[in-house]
Amino acid sequence: MVIHMLNQIPEIIRQKKPLIHSITNYVTANDCANLLLACGASPIMADSSEDAVEITAQCDALNINMGLLNREKLFAMIASGKQANTLHLPVILDPVGVTASTFRRDAAEILMKKIHFTAIKGNASEIWYLAKGSKIFSGVDTAFEIDEQNISPVVQMMKEFAYLKNTIVIMTGQIDLVSDAEKTYLIRNGHSMMKSVTGAGCMLSALTAACLAVSHSALQACATSVCMMGIAGEIAAERMTPQDGNASYRNYLIDAMFHINNDLLKEKANYEIFC
Amino acid sequence: MVIHMLNQIPEIIRQKKPLIHSITNYVTANDCANLLLACGASPIMADSSEDAVEITAQCDALNINMGLLNREKLFAMIASGKQANTLHLPVILDPVGVTASTFRRDAAEILMKKIHFTAIKGNASEIWYLAKGSKIFSGVDTAFEIDEQNISPVVQMMKEFAYLKNTIVIMTGQIDLVSDAEKTYLIRNGHSMMKSVTGAGCMLSALTAACLAVSHSALQACATSVCMMGIAGEIAAERMTPQDGNASYRNYLIDAMFHINNDLLKEKANYEIFC
Amino acid sequence: MVIHMLNQIPEIIRQKKPLIHSITNYVTANDCANLLLACGASPIMADSSEDAVEITAQCDALNINMGLLNREKLFAMIASGKQANTLHLPVILDPVGVTASTFRRDAAEILMKKIHFTAIKGNASEIWYLAKGSKIFSGVDTAFEIDEQNISPVVQMMKEFAYLKNTIVIMTGQIDLVSDAEKTYLIRNGHSMMKSVTGAGCMLSALTAACLAVSHSALQACATSVCMMGIAGEIAAERMTPQDGNASYRNYLIDAMFHINNDLLKEKANYEIFC
Repeated sequence: MVIHMLNQIPEIIRQKKPLIHSITNYVTANDCANLLLACGASPIMADSSEDAVEITAQCDALNINMGLLNREKLFAMIASGKQANTLHLPVILDPVGVTASTFRRDAAEILMKKIHFTAIKGNASEIWYLAKGSKIFSGVDTAFEIDEQNISPVVQMMKEFAYLKNTIVIMTGQIDLVSDAEKTYLIRNGHSMMKSVTGAGCMLSALTAACLAVSHSALQACATSVCMMGIAGEIAAERMTPQDGNASYRNYLIDAMFHINNDLLKEKANYEIFC
Repeated sequence: MVIHMLNQIPEIIRQKKPLIHSITNYVTANDCANLLLACGASPIMADSSEDAVEITAQCDALNINMGLLNREKLFAMIASGKQANTLHLPVILDPVGVTASTFRRDAAEILMKKIHFTAIKGNASEIWYLAKGSKIFSGVDTAFEIDEQNISPVVQMMKEFAYLKNTIVIMTGQIDLVSDAEKTYLIRNGHSMMKSVTGAGCMLSALTAACLAVSHSALQACATSVCMMGIAGEIAAERMTPQDGNASYRNYLIDAMFHINNDLLKEKANYEIFC
Repeated sequence: MVIHMLNQIPEIIRQKKPLIHSITNYVTANDCANLLLACGASPIMADSSEDAVEITAQCDALNINMGLLNREKLFAMIASGKQANTLHLPVILDPVGVTASTFRRDAAEILMKKIHFTAIKGNASEIWYLAKGSKIFSGVDTAFEIDEQNISPVVQMMKEFAYLKNTIVIMTGQIDLVSDAEKTYLIRNGHSMMKSVTGAGCMLSALTAACLAVSHSALQACATSVCMMGIAGEIAAERMTPQDGNASYRNYLIDAMFHINNDLLKEKANYEIFC
């Protein structure tokens, strides 16, 4: 683990307290807000055409999450995303449910056409869908999982997609991948309990917006965010008692983020560069 | 407790991981999603006319919850419910707040006219209102409580309502009742702390959708769901320390569901058939 | 601490179980509902033009929270607020984000013009903005903090604003201030961890609505509510273990409210009258 990485990001977030505008869904909004507070950022949420753009203009990054999408929110996302681009603020897209409906697929397409995203984060199915316009497999919950065997073609696909959209692509799974057009981080942090909590993915997007807000290297910010979230997941798992389940795990996850600092990141980050 | 019951449901849910579409309210959506994950199901939520129907078509059951209702969501509910009926998917109605406003009363009427519900779940006031079109008592929070003395006429009302709507009626209270037109389960699981948590009822509806999704007998699925939720409530109560309150109880409730299996259900289910 | 205060409020709430209608935001709605249950009140939420007014009419107080505002909700707020005024029910305004957008500033102005608020609660920046129509400092998260040095002019501003609007003004911060046109409570309860939890302010507004619903003195109800919330924050902080963070703190905060009674309030309330 001698490769250089932005180990300073956790404490820079706590110093700068970046204000993160999330246009997100009501299932996980509370967890995202508390996760942002846990890492030292300030959350703000506005999802109506009336004021989303004005609020974006006062923030340090914009987090667009497609969960529970509707037309109203889509308009707010487009306008806010354009505003963020104009002001050169980082913007991240979390295409929640993009494989599940025509409306969300069309919305993702419009968003990617109108807005330049600093980063796009999804699971394997979602990223595949955005990159290729088709499902890996049929069925909604058939989760394609990255493992040691299939990494190579997946990284190739991610690099092409990153090149085409001039973005950082984050693909979560058993192994997490973070890639720009040239360089890919393989990250082996995290814990299987994270799949039993709603909003772990949404929280990662919010955290990534905070990392992007304080960093000059978008690729390193994204890789750091994935490591931080995974480390929080590991620390949370260590606290689990036999009676605990996913509700306590959710609390432990946010609690763990509350304590992550540069030293913890340096000690526990588990990644390599894939060539 | 020698009456046959679907003791296998907890583990069938964990094997089949049914995908449950909830059109619900933002107060308890997060808890419902985590409860579904706790029992082994997969939650998905979409509440806009743009994609609710398409998402229902990919799911194993539909959960319609009238909390925080508005016209937009009502349209999505009607369309999704019809889709579920066409595809022979189970659909459950939770008429949250139906006694509190004309809009919700009209909405419940429209929903019950346009959609065949596999099950309808409410407290005594709500079920009475749906069945009789009038309040038991005046006032919003006057909760009519089932007890040993008034069971007989209540069961008769439930059977008639179940017959009329060709549905399973679930009435929650100090004693929970689950009835079709002929047979009624009296269930004595649960704990008084469940009333101190927002969303305990919403979580039960979501769980019932998961049980219905994997079972051939709707009546047994509903009775099992009520037992499972009640048992989780009991286990949660046993964990309470003197400093704990309703927030910790909510977490323990979901945590308990995370651990419920066939053996626990068999051991702790406390019900009888009422004739 | 010999000044008279409504030490009976905690137990009156538990006896009367006032029904509190909140028109609020989806980030913290679940926490507000659980906090209301914790203090012994009953929460109900409806935010659409279709039934908000009818539901207000059945409640004991109305809580209007401007977080995640949109036009639809603003209409419901105006209509419900007028209804509450007609029925002489207490109404509280929480102008979340009023300094952050033109839409919210205009909304606050309209709300204050159309509705008489029993109480208005905000942090220093928000109250300053409502009272003076301008920001204290530029920037969104520049929090002006009350301390021993600047209390005098702030209290003067609050008294004028309270007089102008015939309301009780609650200003939260390191020291909390509660004022009508003549009398100001300085309250030194609370804990710095409350700033690390999303919704602590929203929960205070909901609690204040419950206190107002059962009290004849609006000023004392507001002061009591601020003390109760601060005491819950202190008790929650005492439970923190080294691994705990803001997620556990949120739970402990609501748990603590679950146990607050007259004796605890009397013992721990830390306030003085400012002249």
